[in-house]
Amino acid sequence: MGKVTWKPGTMVYPAPAVLVTCGSTPADWNMLTVAWTGTICTNPAMLYISVRPERHSYPLIMANMEFTVNLTTEAMARATDWAGVRSGKDYDKWKETGLTPEPGEMVKSPAIAESPLAIECRVKEVLHLGSHDMIMADVLCLRADDRYIDPSTGAFSLKDAGLMAYVHGGYYSLGELLGTFGFSVKKHR
Amino acid sequence: MGKVTWKPGTMVYPAPAVLVTCGSTPADWNMLTVAWTGTICTNPAMLYISVRPERHSYPLIMANMEFTVNLTTEAMARATDWAGVRSGKDYDKWKETGLTPEPGEMVKSPAIAESPLAIECRVKEVLHLGSHDMIMADVLCLRADDRYIDPSTGAFSLKDAGLMAYVHGGYYSLGELLGTFGFSVKKHR
Repeated sequence: MGKVTWKPGTMVYPAPAVLVTCGSTPADWNMLTVAWTGTICTNPAMLYISVRPERHSYPLIMANMEFTVNLTTEAMARATDWAGVRSGKDYDKWKETGLTPEPGEMVKSPAIAESPLAIECRVKEVLHLGSHDMIMADVLCLRADDRYIDPSTGAFSLKDAGLMAYVHGGYYSLGELLGTFGFSVKKHR
Repeated sequence: MGKVTWKPGTMVYPAPAVLVTCGSTPADWNMLTVAWTGTICTNPAMLYISVRPERHSYPLIMANMEFTVNLTTEAMARATDWAGVRSGKDYDKWKETGLTPEPGEMVKSPAIAESPLAIECRVKEVLHLGSHDMIMADVLCLRADDRYIDPSTGAFSLKDAGLMAYVHGGYYSLGELLGTFGFSVKKHR
């Protein structure tokens, strides 16, 4: 029993599996599934997506230097997988997945109506790392589905949205709440 | 019903909540909880961690330009939360959490014995973004707990390790498998 050593690999899990939307007009709006994404700074709020330059969406992002990150749910698992396997060069991904575009607030790229949260972004810097370019971006605004906002408290419950996680080739639902931030140091009453 | 617009925020979820270990000798080995982490390139395998420079672990990472990312599980939820709230300046985090350090293979920083997978990293570049520095690193090797390796097939099952996800202030277990990569285009037989 113990640890065995393997060659380098990409094993930071669980990862999100977001749908990145891009394009400047309804005719060229596209989506792309991205698991290599995350927050890189709290203040200012910044995130990254790492994308292979040969992907159909890559020049669409670069044309406007804008994109939108749409969080994905259990109900979107099939569409998310499909959009990651197929190319917008060959298919109208909106038609094929049944997902619904809606205009952005501060960017030309659309949000996905079925997503509980869309994060509108402007590209700040692109780093060529190898297979992937890391696209670093400022978060311009968040667009939250009001279905998950408690009208009495204003609290936004992403848990109720049924977010999905990606782990080493598998899409998983989220299970039980194990604790909230700081629970390990809270006094018992 | 629809989307409401909010000011920028850090909402790329679910995120991992990894334990980053650092330091060069058993006396200064420390750990730090990081949710702002992810894969940034597949080939070469690279990841990032974003850390506030004022954290106790920051100079420990910079001293050797090495660190280890340890994936976390449901069983590690309390320790992971605790290591994120408390500082190694004030506590011996190993003693307080009960987690067990073991020597690294290619780095001076330790792995956590209780973690199913340790990712040994060498710092490549540091970007000062604001509240957080983004530390980009090459993955040197993976160290996998053989408890999760099927002896007959050699397959590594992170699912069996009970990985934990972090969503907007909450730690969650993973739930059911919704599908595997490519399931949306597989022919039904």
